[in-house]
Amino acid sequence: MKAAVLVGLEQVELQERPEPEAGPGWVVVKVESASLCGTDAHQYDGRIDTPFPRVPGHDFAGRVESIGDDVDPTWVGRAVAVKPSLPCGECLECAQDKPFDCKKKKLIGLWSDGCLTEKIAVPVVNLIPRPDDVEAWQASLLEPIAVGLNTVDRLRILLGETVVVLGQGPIGLALTRLCALSGAGQLIVTDAREAPFEVSRAYGASDCLDVTQVDAKERVLELTGGLGADIVVETSGFPSSSAMVLDLVRKEGKVAHIGWANDLPPLPVIPIMAKTLTVFGVGGNGGRGQYERALELVRTGRLDLDPMVTHRFSLDDIGEAFAVAASKSDGAIKVVVTP
Amino acid sequence: MKAAVLVGLEQVELQERPEPEAGPGWVVVKVESASLCGTDAHQYDGRIDTPFPRVPGHDFAGRVESIGDDVDPTWVGRAVAVKPSLPCGECLECAQDKPFDCKKKKLIGLWSDGCLTEKIAVPVVNLIPRPDDVEAWQASLLEPIAVGLNTVDRLRILLGETVVVLGQGPIGLALTRLCALSGAGQLIVTDAREAPFEVSRAYGASDCLDVTQVDAKERVLELTGGLGADIVVETSGFPSSSAMVLDLVRKEGKVAHIGWANDLPPLPVIPIMAKTLTVFGVGGNGGRGQYERALELVRTGRLDLDPMVTHRFSLDDIGEAFAVAASKSDGAIKVVVTP
Amino acid sequence: MKAAVLVGLEQVELQERPEPEAGPGWVVVKVESASLCGTDAHQYDGRIDTPFPRVPGHDFAGRVESIGDDVDPTWVGRAVAVKPSLPCGECLECAQDKPFDCKKKKLIGLWSDGCLTEKIAVPVVNLIPRPDDVEAWQASLLEPIAVGLNTVDRLRILLGETVVVLGQGPIGLALTRLCALSGAGQLIVTDAREAPFEVSRAYGASDCLDVTQVDAKERVLELTGGLGADIVVETSGFPSSSAMVLDLVRKEGKVAHIGWANDLPPLPVIPIMAKTLTVFGVGGNGGRGQYERALELVRTGRLDLDPMVTHRFSLDDIGEAFAVAASKSDGAIKVVVTP
Amino acid sequence: MKAAVLVGLEQVELQERPEPEAGPGWVVVKVESASLCGTDAHQYDGRIDTPFPRVPGHDFAGRVESIGDDVDPTWVGRAVAVKPSLPCGECLECAQDKPFDCKKKKLIGLWSDGCLTEKIAVPVVNLIPRPDDVEAWQASLLEPIAVGLNTVDRLRILLGETVVVLGQGPIGLALTRLCALSGAGQLIVTDAREAPFEVSRAYGASDCLDVTQVDAKERVLELTGGLGADIVVETSGFPSSSAMVLDLVRKEGKVAHIGWANDLPPLPVIPIMAKTLTVFGVGGNGGRGQYERALELVRTGRLDLDPMVTHRFSLDDIGEAFAVAASKSDGAIKVVVTP
Repeated sequence: MKAAVLVGLEQVELQERPEPEAGPGWVVVKVESASLCGTDAHQYDGRIDTPFPRVPGHDFAGRVESIGDDVDPTWVGRAVAVKPSLPCGECLECAQDKPFDCKKKKLIGLWSDGCLTEKIAVPVVNLIPRPDDVEAWQASLLEPIAVGLNTVDRLRILLGETVVVLGQGPIGLALTRLCALSGAGQLIVTDAREAPFEVSRAYGASDCLDVTQVDAKERVLELTGGLGADIVVETSGFPSSSAMVLDLVRKEGKVAHIGWANDLPPLPVIPIMAKTLTVFGVGGNGGRGQYERALELVRTGRLDLDPMVTHRFSLDDIGEAFAVAASKSDGAIKVVVTP
Repeated sequence: MKAAVLVGLEQVELQERPEPEAGPGWVVVKVESASLCGTDAHQYDGRIDTPFPRVPGHDFAGRVESIGDDVDPTWVGRAVAVKPSLPCGECLECAQDKPFDCKKKKLIGLWSDGCLTEKIAVPVVNLIPRPDDVEAWQASLLEPIAVGLNTVDRLRILLGETVVVLGQGPIGLALTRLCALSGAGQLIVTDAREAPFEVSRAYGASDCLDVTQVDAKERVLELTGGLGADIVVETSGFPSSSAMVLDLVRKEGKVAHIGWANDLPPLPVIPIMAKTLTVFGVGGNGGRGQYERALELVRTGRLDLDPMVTHRFSLDDIGEAFAVAASKSDGAIKVVVTP
Repeated sequence: MKAAVLVGLEQVELQERPEPEAGPGWVVVKVESASLCGTDAHQYDGRIDTPFPRVPGHDFAGRVESIGDDVDPTWVGRAVAVKPSLPCGECLECAQDKPFDCKKKKLIGLWSDGCLTEKIAVPVVNLIPRPDDVEAWQASLLEPIAVGLNTVDRLRILLGETVVVLGQGPIGLALTRLCALSGAGQLIVTDAREAPFEVSRAYGASDCLDVTQVDAKERVLELTGGLGADIVVETSGFPSSSAMVLDLVRKEGKVAHIGWANDLPPLPVIPIMAKTLTVFGVGGNGGRGQYERALELVRTGRLDLDPMVTHRFSLDDIGEAFAVAASKSDGAIKVVVTP
Repeated sequence: MKAAVLVGLEQVELQERPEPEAGPGWVVVKVESASLCGTDAHQYDGRIDTPFPRVPGHDFAGRVESIGDDVDPTWVGRAVAVKPSLPCGECLECAQDKPFDCKKKKLIGLWSDGCLTEKIAVPVVNLIPRPDDVEAWQASLLEPIAVGLNTVDRLRILLGETVVVLGQGPIGLALTRLCALSGAGQLIVTDAREAPFEVSRAYGASDCLDVTQVDAKERVLELTGGLGADIVVETSGFPSSSAMVLDLVRKEGKVAHIGWANDLPPLPVIPIMAKTLTVFGVGGNGGRGQYERALELVRTGRLDLDPMVTHRFSLDDIGEAFAVAASKSDGAIKVVVTP
């Protein structure tokens, strides 16, 4: 079967690979749609170290083709979304049959070969049944929503609170929509491109700040009567954005930090104390039902993924897909790949 | 000046009363709009005992006309909304200048003469400055929203949770809108009249059940895959509705009870334990900023009060106003009175 | 092997039973200690319906003797405590390898034969490794502590809050100790016997009220300056005790209801609203790590079980054991049985 | 009357000052006891900028001697503890009679003359009635407890969680005791001196680490089975201690940062995200009842202040008092001054 393979920095190529087989407790999924996220792009551009050669990709949906031993046979033929991290299978939690509490989960596509291929084997515990009215391309875009849910679940927005979302890439846009749905009052977003702001507004943003044009800190303080926002969510992973969060938040406010990059400036402690802040670090999707809830938000149309998908490629054009996703050229937000 | 006076059961009449004066820490407010709520209706129909004669009314807005000693003179002439409960002035909290923590607050219009008149004296601590873009009639409808905020603040809805709101009177409708804004997924409402359902749907209800036509319990279980709702909010004050709450909620779910009536059936303890439920009793607006936040929701249009106001009367027609409010005839939801 | 068997109301006898075998994912545990709780006593006296004949008992500890297929062989020979509820094995959660989220868990000793025997088969997921410094009799007394943890986890006591624990049977005593450890200030307990009060005081109770001698309501209000307690926990299952909870708790306070009986009076709704209360129903141990934490509290001596165990019997004297446990004669609090 | 006056760096002298008078809403308190805290010491040694000359001191207790207008006359002669921050009197919150919500509170002894004198005028809202069984010296030591309560209230320790408290000065010791009372299981503390460890142990610490002798990080990981602590509270204000917090805490754990110094290293963002941490900045006592609750903990003996007070001076020896407090010589923990 065909598989996209990262063979070096900014080098991805199609290779022929053997079809996977399902061991006990595992299934083989025929991939119907996959999406590229920042992790994929950073594996490609080298900001995330990857053992080459590696089949990348972890956010996908498809249909169960075959099953291994100890798997309920009714899974065969079912449409599914798939959670992207594999339990280690060795720790106490895994040994006690609680795979989602595994502290050593490994991302598919990074620590093992991923989903940018025709078929992939995954543990049955990673499957989520996909209803008929959710298409494969939609179900291949659940990860940023699940990460966003893991964030808003912890932020516990009070109805009417002012929220700032820094960065309007896919995770920033997902957060914009989720904060709007969760009761944010004024909802201010920032980005260094105008491109995503149309989506931001459709998702509920009240004010969109292009940080290349305005002083975001000054503007947020203006928009909040000089107090700062109740909640600030940093998703961009840009040092200049991360450096602002403590200035933008009000006294006794909350900060969530999701944007990940090796060159982020550290957070000074004094303002965290002086302002009596609470800072939440968000390192993933939580693994406690967020995927299932993300699927339901998509199914009911409360989170419409359509405006987020700017580019679609077939697996045969994987090189172009990665080039667009990594460069964010041509107004790219989210790139979907169909095998 | 003119004042509406309850002189007996179902007897309200216009009387001439002396104009109030503002003592130290108090102001006189010229009433520009007042609204009638269930409490007013029940003072009128006798379900709430009232010492007659009494000027009823507690939910109102107007403009500060004069001030007593120790009051900031810039209040004069300002447009205001007014919180409806008076601190007792005698307890430890009042003595320590924390009037909103007073445990013995008394409702204006019940324990002292109320706002269905031309002018009324209130403590300056009860005032909320009203922005120019909020009209008096809007600001005279804040109480159900404030009570609703006190409810959703405690329920802490997780994004996507299924919510049932029983009863679609003004508080039920406010809760419908506030739950929709706070992240409710499926949002099922009930009432014994079809009349309010148009408003319910505009406020975000996904399913409207007329309890005179369908078996609400059966239908809610159907709509929730047999599990029951994550959250059930009872606002109707009807015994048959209150009797359902524990059947409608899922295991480990939450219940809020706001609907108040003397003939409510008590809650059996076994299902509360067996289902590991959390039951929140809501007895008012909380007095911790809910009024200010209600005003902001109205100002920004996130809660549009217009569809809720079905009837408007001048103070001269107060008899008709009470008759409509008490009978809920003619599709009445909320009645506004302009002095 | 020998097994205690309930053959009718108040009829328990020793019978010879075949030794159990471990199916896939199950193990056979040699029982080293078991304890009797209120459920056992009520199965014996008929307040809980039981399909006779039935081997009762669910709170126990022992050592793994043999294992079935798919079980890690290092379990053999390990000392263990055992969680008392069996996952159904059929629901979606069980199918997805999340047995502790099973909504249809069945209590061992009620829905299937229990632990008052020499050996019993249980799923490996029910095992908790028992450290060397915890004795079997201690590890056979974890259930009331786990139920208590599930209660205090939800109550979230603020340091210094006043707590009332109604009933000082094993669960009431566990709650007394757990509330003391969790930051309760004044800690008032009640019972209809003086017998447990020595243990109550050792566990941290500041005031012990014999409800047959004093008016508990009057006394609690006296002890709380007329305000009522911040938190009231009902564990007795007695109607007269349950009927008091809403009178004992302060405005905006919290109530937990654990005591289970078919004849409990229902809770009136008006005071729950008027006092803005939060009522927590507690129906079990939560199944989210409470057993493991209970074991740790015992291991570290923070909860000393010794004063709670008033009677010890061998399995041969099971009739006497049940008679004492059911009648609470002779100052009985907790009865331990050794096979 | 006599007053201690900071006239320059490390220069404190006794001066004669005029007696204060009480304006409207204020009272004059005769100081019976005052304590020195880190802020006083840093005003003395220059780490906190102070406008000289300034009467320092803010943590004190005494008796109301006289009152201004608008003050309840029953305050005269009452024993009191005093909250140390003055509301600004000018902001919206102050104008609305909610002084404790004032966002611009100013510390007595820093922004205005303080309590190291015979008499001081304070607003009546700052007073807390002091029961007969609490001595003045005890009531002059409430601040570290109030700060500690503001910390544990936010941390919400689950019973049995492992807590590390870094630094065992007065606030660190207060936190040690408060965490022990709030349900901490293993309770590990660190300091660069052995001196406070006897108090630490009396307050409930299970393990005391002298960071000059052992590698605290290595030892904490050993003591927690390699996982790290559930909660880490940094109180020392030492860079090397602050730099450790993210290493000591477990995945999904909580960090509170109270220790204040200008040279603290900033917190790296990646581990906060990778470990999904929650970081609480604590900048004061919260002003929401923590002082009253601190007084009650002292009154009931649950927090015994005696072991914390190592030195007592009369106001005449204020120079020596500051020298000891600033140098922490002679095993000094807390210094009390009696006018």
